[in-house]
Amino acid sequence: MKQAIIIRKDIKMGKGKIAAQASHASIGAYKKASYLTKKQWELTGQKKIVLKTDNMQTLIELFTNAKKQKLPVALIKDAGKTQIPEGTVTCLGIGPADDNKIDLVTKHLKLY
Amino acid sequence: MKQAIIIRKDIKMGKGKIAAQASHASIGAYKKASYLTKKQWELTGQKKIVLKTDNMQTLIELFTNAKKQKLPVALIKDAGKTQIPEGTVTCLGIGPADDNKIDLVTKHLKLY
Repeated sequence: MKQAIIIRKDIKMGKGKIAAQASHASIGAYKKASYLTKKQWELTGQKKIVLKTDNMQTLIELFTNAKKQKLPVALIKDAGKTQIPEGTVTCLGIGPADDNKIDLVTKHLKLY
Repeated sequence: MKQAIIIRKDIKMGKGKIAAQASHASIGAYKKASYLTKKQWELTGQKKIVLKTDNMQTLIELFTNAKKQKLPVALIKDAGKTQIPEGTVTCLGIGPADDNKIDLVTKHLKLY
């Protein structure tokens, strides 16, 4: 099992900003998973992978595809208090879920 | 209310690595909070701040101080599959909790 966090590379964010946005995505998707799924993921080491996309359009498509697969998913918009404009979509959390279900949606993406 | 994520600056980690480690800390500390605290934090915008330390010693001290204050806390060790040696302590999650309780432990730290 794993959780995937997909981050846009085309917007300028510092490391602290990325850490905060990724954490929003991680908790957001985690909360959507079933109790059993969360427990299974925790017992198997809570694997996370961090991937990248080049633009907002791709991130929205990934979100739609993950929804179609009924995966737990959270699309993160920034509150816009620092660095980037309000409402900017920054990243996406998918899972935890079985590796192969996550791969169905994310296998073409590269590691961040 | 807020959650603080404190990351070591003295170990070399790429942005993807930092995103994954911060997410571990975020979920780890979140899970330790009470149901009511989690709900209050979610209803008030799930504020997160990302801070930095210069060494492991400071991170361990912050962990101990947060424990003493009975704050939800998670100290993250890396599994060591990429970039850094196995068991390296990388970051710390504290909260969600009231801002002033988090500040008691972290107010001397700078933003990452």
